[in-house]
Amino acid sequence: MLTLHSYWRSSAAYRVRIALSLKGLEFAQVTHDLRQNAHLEPGYRALNPQHLVPALDTGDAVLTQSPAILEWLEETHPEPALLPSTPSSRAIVRSMCDLIACDIHPLNNLRVLRELKTEFGADASRLDLWARGWIAEGFTALEVLVEKHGQGFCFGDTPTLADCFLIPQIFSAQRFGVDLRPYPALRAVNERCDEHPAFVRAHPIHQPDADQVDS
Amino acid sequence: MLTLHSYWRSSAAYRVRIALSLKGLEFAQVTHDLRQNAHLEPGYRALNPQHLVPALDTGDAVLTQSPAILEWLEETHPEPALLPSTPSSRAIVRSMCDLIACDIHPLNNLRVLRELKTEFGADASRLDLWARGWIAEGFTALEVLVEKHGQGFCFGDTPTLADCFLIPQIFSAQRFGVDLRPYPALRAVNERCDEHPAFVRAHPIHQPDADQVDS
Repeated sequence: MLTLHSYWRSSAAYRVRIALSLKGLEFAQVTHDLRQNAHLEPGYRALNPQHLVPALDTGDAVLTQSPAILEWLEETHPEPALLPSTPSSRAIVRSMCDLIACDIHPLNNLRVLRELKTEFGADASRLDLWARGWIAEGFTALEVLVEKHGQGFCFGDTPTLADCFLIPQIFSAQRFGVDLRPYPALRAVNERCDEHPAFVRAHPIHQPDADQVDS
Repeated sequence: MLTLHSYWRSSAAYRVRIALSLKGLEFAQVTHDLRQNAHLEPGYRALNPQHLVPALDTGDAVLTQSPAILEWLEETHPEPALLPSTPSSRAIVRSMCDLIACDIHPLNNLRVLRELKTEFGADASRLDLWARGWIAEGFTALEVLVEKHGQGFCFGDTPTLADCFLIPQIFSAQRFGVDLRPYPALRAVNERCDEHPAFVRAHPIHQPDADQVDS
């Protein structure tokens, strides 16, 4: 049995839940409340030296970093494929994933926002502005790529890893109050995924540790 | 012929140069001076909507995002292999790459430091402290992984993609004045790579656009 170390509102954990759901895989969840620093406890640090979520316990190994976990899932459970078949098209899908995983998400996650608050005295509205700026810059480029390569999903007409990255990032963008009107191609993918059972199952609000009220 | 859109001191371009050198591939370089905002010119933006370096023009397509480019290289030029053979060990190598590509580098690159300066008035010493903090946090976790899995290189006794990410990050860490003494396993890999011809060829100071004096 696969066990996912997770937190309901973590974008990176959400990516993995989507891929697990798309692959039709059952998994257990162990949740760590990041707001309470539960991920910093020694027991979890022994499993994952970086003590971030997610981590996937496969029974044989504890895998960390959502992009690496998704590649492992694709290699070990190839159906349905979440990467297209040619190297060039695979590179395009992966570049969409990296645009989000490297150039948007790391700048807006909890540990960085906390640091901006502590080190530079940024208040909530400055933090929202900071987050919105990086999301807008990334989405502007991603919109061009999805407009070019997408046909219902980010790349082509079936879900790929790129959708596993986009949907959590849109969820996060909405929390930061990003205006999504300039990104019709991204919004269309989001609307499509809103009705897809695997994406619905993976949504933060459907996780066991979800707050009743957003906080 | 492969053409790499590059900048001598870009960590992400440096990763790709190392992999190209390890694979023994010839390539041309088109350099973009990031300090002069040359990457923002419309001609480059038409090639790469995100207008960052690197981009790799394969003749058939322009690939972006260094992690995606490295996966493409591994798929299209499999020898010498830069990923190990089992899915679990591949996941470990990729998690080392992601730790650097997602959790260290994005917080310290030029566009982010510029924003901290503009938005929060951070001076050079605050920027160095900011960068050093994230590098130290990442290297502390990476040290555990390399100590466990490395035998001369980050994973095992031959170079992998993890070394393509680590060596540029150490070069960057040295520029920010990071104390590397707490990371003996990472330093050992760096010393080994310092003598490896492919790593030497890819080094920033050996690129056509390198400054004579560091600036």
